[in-house]
Amino acid sequence: MAKVKCGVIGLGGRGTGVLCDLLVKLEDFECAYVCDTYEDRVENAAKRVADTTGITPKKTTDWHEVVTAPEVEAVIITTAWEPHIEIAAAAMENGKPAAMEVGGAYSIDDCWKLVRTYERTGVPCMFLENCCYGRIEMMVLNMVRQGVFGDVVHCAGGYHHDLRTEILYGEENRHYRLRNYINRNCENYPTHELGPIAKVLGINRGNRMMYLTSTASCAKGLNEYARTHESVNRKLATTEFRQGDVVTTTIKCANGETIVLTLDTTLPRVYCRGFCVRGTKAMYQEENNSFFIEEEHSNYEFDGTPLWNNADKYYEKYEHPLWKKYLEGGIKGGHGGLDGLVYDAFIQSVKDKTLPPIDVYDAAAWMCISTLSEKSISMGSMPVEIPDFTNGKWFNRQDHCTGVYTLE
Amino acid sequence: MAKVKCGVIGLGGRGTGVLCDLLVKLEDFECAYVCDTYEDRVENAAKRVADTTGITPKKTTDWHEVVTAPEVEAVIITTAWEPHIEIAAAAMENGKPAAMEVGGAYSIDDCWKLVRTYERTGVPCMFLENCCYGRIEMMVLNMVRQGVFGDVVHCAGGYHHDLRTEILYGEENRHYRLRNYINRNCENYPTHELGPIAKVLGINRGNRMMYLTSTASCAKGLNEYARTHESVNRKLATTEFRQGDVVTTTIKCANGETIVLTLDTTLPRVYCRGFCVRGTKAMYQEENNSFFIEEEHSNYEFDGTPLWNNADKYYEKYEHPLWKKYLEGGIKGGHGGLDGLVYDAFIQSVKDKTLPPIDVYDAAAWMCISTLSEKSISMGSMPVEIPDFTNGKWFNRQDHCTGVYTLE
Repeated sequence: MAKVKCGVIGLGGRGTGVLCDLLVKLEDFECAYVCDTYEDRVENAAKRVADTTGITPKKTTDWHEVVTAPEVEAVIITTAWEPHIEIAAAAMENGKPAAMEVGGAYSIDDCWKLVRTYERTGVPCMFLENCCYGRIEMMVLNMVRQGVFGDVVHCAGGYHHDLRTEILYGEENRHYRLRNYINRNCENYPTHELGPIAKVLGINRGNRMMYLTSTASCAKGLNEYARTHESVNRKLATTEFRQGDVVTTTIKCANGETIVLTLDTTLPRVYCRGFCVRGTKAMYQEENNSFFIEEEHSNYEFDGTPLWNNADKYYEKYEHPLWKKYLEGGIKGGHGGLDGLVYDAFIQSVKDKTLPPIDVYDAAAWMCISTLSEKSISMGSMPVEIPDFTNGKWFNRQDHCTGVYTLE
Repeated sequence: MAKVKCGVIGLGGRGTGVLCDLLVKLEDFECAYVCDTYEDRVENAAKRVADTTGITPKKTTDWHEVVTAPEVEAVIITTAWEPHIEIAAAAMENGKPAAMEVGGAYSIDDCWKLVRTYERTGVPCMFLENCCYGRIEMMVLNMVRQGVFGDVVHCAGGYHHDLRTEILYGEENRHYRLRNYINRNCENYPTHELGPIAKVLGINRGNRMMYLTSTASCAKGLNEYARTHESVNRKLATTEFRQGDVVTTTIKCANGETIVLTLDTTLPRVYCRGFCVRGTKAMYQEENNSFFIEEEHSNYEFDGTPLWNNADKYYEKYEHPLWKKYLEGGIKGGHGGLDGLVYDAFIQSVKDKTLPPIDVYDAAAWMCISTLSEKSISMGSMPVEIPDFTNGKWFNRQDHCTGVYTLE
């Protein structure tokens, strides 16, 4: 079978990494077009693709050329956050399945545009949330589906990632985060944790998110770092960053569950996604890598020993079938293999003409959290409604993906 | 010097335990009066006190007798949550210093009553929040005061305690929790985590809490447990509990910090107070018993190893002076010695006629979270203002306790 000829738009760190380290090695991927605003990035990526594959892709600094090019069958969008939806919608308008890297939305209208363009054109668009394919996240999902957790009533997660150097030295790499941290104050990156939680709670498939409140702490981390590190651009030492250091967002779901999301990217710490699932029969908590299962554990067994650290032993019994197969075949791509799974899922869905496992309704529901949290914060944590982008279809929607990458 | 003659009101599990296992052993405590609604409890406590001390206290089932008795010099209130403030105010009106066990408030007016009674009478009242005296909490406070954390911008804590059996079998012990879980839906027990956080953030002493939002999950834990355990009173199997399983409350402070509180008492898990302090230079997290200090640790040192579990090694350098002394003298009372510290602090403040380290302003500010969270939840997580019970005195108030139990 023929390879899927893709255009890749956005060749910063993420785009170039995914393209040159992962995509070019996938059996069913062919790089037909590379695009970035910056010509040096385009040249560099094209050369690396040619060196690896022997085929030189077309090159442009105007993404409109990619989404209209006859030889492009699918579009992969790895740009800055801001134009994700605009480019994805243009790709769909031109009949080309699109895949967007993660990020939040800047308006509710943009989320509707994504949904309405899909509904009008029938061209699918996948949201590339790699953390939905996390090994532990998928095992937990598998256990939830098997009833190990009983009824799930609460989930939490966070983007706990110290990005101070990435943000403050970002100008050199022409990175988009700096301008976001200067201008906005919101849950700017909700989907790494919300994606897996949405799958656990059946969001858009029998459940939906109803409303949220969001509260931001003061913003001190970036400024203090800039002031005390001479190597940071001196104008940043007096820049007033709007983005609060810790943003807490609480979501209430139609079926009564709550979700707590934490953005935490400008204070010292180690990386963690804080994944936590609470049910009437069991809990999982990432911070101490542990399951507490009522049938197996006593309440007092671990008293004074929060570090019971037992999660790994559950893989034998509950490993998700997708990961079982993946480990046998050898994992691919960065971030512990998550990238391999999520990008392969897109390529396969294009090839097989199946709907992607993370669709426009998921993308709209997850991405809208950013703009809604901005609204809530700006109004003193007022609750704001989360739109039903399915217009009631969530009552009956099932996990519709029939491919091997289904997230059930 | 003479012992402090105390009346003890409320002789359920907590009151009897504190009185008979801790107070009677304190050098400066004398039990003058015991009181409970239930006569059998009164008789039992009086007998145990007499057996240990050789002195039989007076007995009553009417607390008004205790707060007006000439021989009572101070009143200790260990009743159900509901009458805490009413009894404390009556004690103050009668010129007797009072100490209240922890619990939340049922109205803002009751909190004002506590404050106004103190201001009018000049008789002190202490809030017995033992977790303020936690060894780790006090070490963290000590480190914050020494600047190890830089500027603190966010704190979190929770009452993570599986109380399902205590609640559902509570009728046998005439416990007050059951009626609260049936009738209310709120952050019903905020102070174990909020107390130490308030000390860290200087609440009422240069800072104050401005507003909160609160969101409750559905209530499934108690009902499922009651349905599936035949030994639970069968009428509870069909009781509709209003109290959500997990309640998330987010507070914004005047100086910009955020606080996240979690009530989590009706799902399977182990005990934890989820204490977390985030600063521009360091963090502490109870779940994995760990400090991350920028000067000592690299961001990547623990990647993939959330369980660095290094907190204990910091005691050598940062143990709070109060705990250093306490450990040398031998710890007293339950809950790892916290009870000994908090009750001793009260007795000493009465004896020395000093102000207690946790006063009516603290009590009002911490206890009001319960009724405000109830309000927020009932209105779909609307933000609600937190009163300034100091009426502006927080601008300049210092930790005013000069005794050995000061919480600085």
